Amino acid sequence: MNSPHHPSEPKADKAGVRRHNLSLVLRTVHEAGETTRAAVAARVGLTRAAVSSLAEQLLERGLLVESGKTFSGQAGRPGTVLKPACTGPAGLGVEINVDYVNVCVADLTGADRVRRSVPLDNRALAPVVVLRRAAELTAEVLAEASRQDLHPTGVRLALPGLVSGGTVRQAPNLGWNRVDADVLFAEALAAARPPGAPALPVASDNEANIAALAELWFGALGAVRSFLLVTGEIGVGGAIVLDGELLRGAHGFAGEIGHLTVAPDGRRCRCGSLGCLEQYAGQTALLRAAGARSVDTLTERAVAGEPRALAALDEAGRMLGVALSGAVNLLDPQAVVLGGIFPRLMPWLAPAAEAELSRRVVSALWPSSAARLRPASTTATTARGAAALVLRDILADPLTYGG
Amino acid sequence: MNSPHHPSEPKADKAGVRRHNLSLVLRTVHEAGETTRAAVAARVGLTRAAVSSLAEQLLERGLLVESGKTFSGQAGRPGTVLKPACTGPAGLGVEINVDYVNVCVADLTGADRVRRSVPLDNRALAPVVVLRRAAELTAEVLAEASRQDLHPTGVRLALPGLVSGGTVRQAPNLGWNRVDADVLFAEALAAARPPGAPALPVASDNEANIAALAELWFGALGAVRSFLLVTGEIGVGGAIVLDGELLRGAHGFAGEIGHLTVAPDGRRCRCGSLGCLEQYAGQTALLRAAGARSVDTLTERAVAGEPRALAALDEAGRMLGVALSGAVNLLDPQAVVLGGIFPRLMPWLAPAAEAELSRRVVSALWPSSAARLRPASTTATTARGAAALVLRDILADPLTYGG
Repeated sequence: MNSPHHPSEPKADKAGVRRHNLSLVLRTVHEAGETTRAAVAARVGLTRAAVSSLAEQLLERGLLVESGKTFSGQAGRPGTVLKPACTGPAGLGVEINVDYVNVCVADLTGADRVRRSVPLDNRALAPVVVLRRAAELTAEVLAEASRQDLHPTGVRLALPGLVSGGTVRQAPNLGWNRVDADVLFAEALAAARPPGAPALPVASDNEANIAALAELWFGALGAVRSFLLVTGEIGVGGAIVLDGELLRGAHGFAGEIGHLTVAPDGRRCRCGSLGCLEQYAGQTALLRAAGARSVDTLTERAVAGEPRALAALDEAGRMLGVALSGAVNLLDPQAVVLGGIFPRLMPWLAPAAEAELSRRVVSALWPSSAARLRPASTTATTARGAAALVLRDILADPLTYGG
Repeated sequence: MNSPHHPSEPKADKAGVRRHNLSLVLRTVHEAGETTRAAVAARVGLTRAAVSSLAEQLLERGLLVESGKTFSGQAGRPGTVLKPACTGPAGLGVEINVDYVNVCVADLTGADRVRRSVPLDNRALAPVVVLRRAAELTAEVLAEASRQDLHPTGVRLALPGLVSGGTVRQAPNLGWNRVDADVLFAEALAAARPPGAPALPVASDNEANIAALAELWFGALGAVRSFLLVTGEIGVGGAIVLDGELLRGAHGFAGEIGHLTVAPDGRRCRCGSLGCLEQYAGQTALLRAAGARSVDTLTERAVAGEPRALAALDEAGRMLGVALSGAVNLLDPQAVVLGGIFPRLMPWLAPAAEAELSRRVVSALWPSSAARLRPASTTATTARGAAALVLRDILADPLTYGG
């Protein structure tokens, strides 16, 4: 990202250069958290004067704020600190999963400022009803955000299925096929919001993809930039991040590890195939095998050493390990992150999964590498990741959103 | 690649700018096959005068040649055609597989100008002996190349195993463990070449990785830039190309689809795991199941409708389909390319593999997409790909190699 447009380059028109460089300065401040004009200039390769002028425009539009005095680390000269604004333009994320809806507003710094979560059995409801409930919750969150002087510029929906061009092509665990989520949610939100409130653009994406970006942006991955995320929900979702970028694939459907075959002639899956991972390690399959009604119950029984619970977790861990071995052999990632219900079940799942990985990953790379199973960070929620995707649009083109 | 360095950018020293821009012009001509100075200038965003000066230096060093007159498409004015030289600096590739060695010299245009292939059962020989035989064959090829005024600037080895930092970490089908292939081959080549011949730098890589690059550069993929390559050899190799770049992974070992589990409690593999794909679809496994001694025999029997041959091919195709379904669900590639022994077996392998893909790939994307199984191109040999990797070094820094 940190490459300025120079007027000497061909076909770079003046307005385009300004737009690009405003974004460059805003993204640089955003990445740093707080910094000085001099440090920005050094980082992006523009003159100090150019950066000052660009920063002024961003301050005027309320995208940056200025505070205090500091000493720039590099030059030893005093400079005013620039930060992203923590009021004004914001992002709104909505995670619609099989048994709950989460909504989050993040300010331009990425902080999650408003959060709402409601349990909702979305399998029992028509898509249009689910989207209406989610829109109603979103309208409440928007009202609360407005009281905090936060004004989302768009909505990102996270959905547990194959999403492309605003449509949920297939979400087997929701029972959705070809649902125009973007349009239906936007209509429902328009109906739920106070009259006169501006319409917000809505865009949908796969929930595991967004969870992976949340982990990248808000997790505890350190230097890890290439990883596989596997989320245990009613089904099993997955996403792949390579060098800090989501792998979307040719049709936008990459990362579907939940439907990797772990037993070619095994249990029938809702997707139509046989022996998919999620029929062994998804929440529904796991609870059924354990004879437990909730993950809380399962955890209690596992703590108590109940044999059926332990056997179910061991089998799920084993199948998870078989599927992960395949993914690790293909992708050779720096890390494998487990999200959703998996982190709290890791004491029982992980040993069986690690045993399979040690045995099945070529060159016995697994145990000796840094790529061990690790739990997703609790601060890196999918709804926050969705909100941050809206922020990314603001950062990419500040002129459209600021002021 | 097509971004010129401008003197206005920070820290771009003059020699570095010249080096970068020489490479830019050479790569642009190489990509075009033949083009004019004016077209290069328009493409890369440098002035016509700057491109002319850079082209002059590349002509003097023998990296470009000039021929005839033409009309530039864009401006309608006459311009001399520039092409990469077809004598002088060249690349040399060596594929050492389990039962053969292939050597190829490619000129700067990418054309394969000298080719040698010898059958060699490398399982029966010590690594140092295999590398010596390959070096002797290489010395013969170098002598022939020299007669054609082609002078390779380096050697790239393609090996069927996990390669990192010049060492074969593990090549189960060769029986190699921690073999310093680069050093051993360079020593053997120094001994085999005529006295006084210059030493050549040697670098090793995984054979499937190189086969995938060969397919990308010399195959018939059209607009496909993201694909999975699976090569049937004694074992089964694999490589992943995303947006025209090889996915190497955190340790350089990505793409190992041969060790994807297709039957968790299945046949023991040489890698130490159970139920790896190559125990069902690799050449050794396939011939054993068919009771055939060679792929030629197997093909003849399949043509004749011999039930055991057909059953073995159907089972291999089925397992290949199970593994490919997993890879397609994870990667969502534009295409899956089958190489090695698979192309000529596709009439029997492909139907079973396609059936599994239709059933197991989520959203039934498989049959409706362009991502069907396709055979590797016969012109895209691994040895040629290896030679082209040497060319890439020349293109990246022409000053080091030209003249």
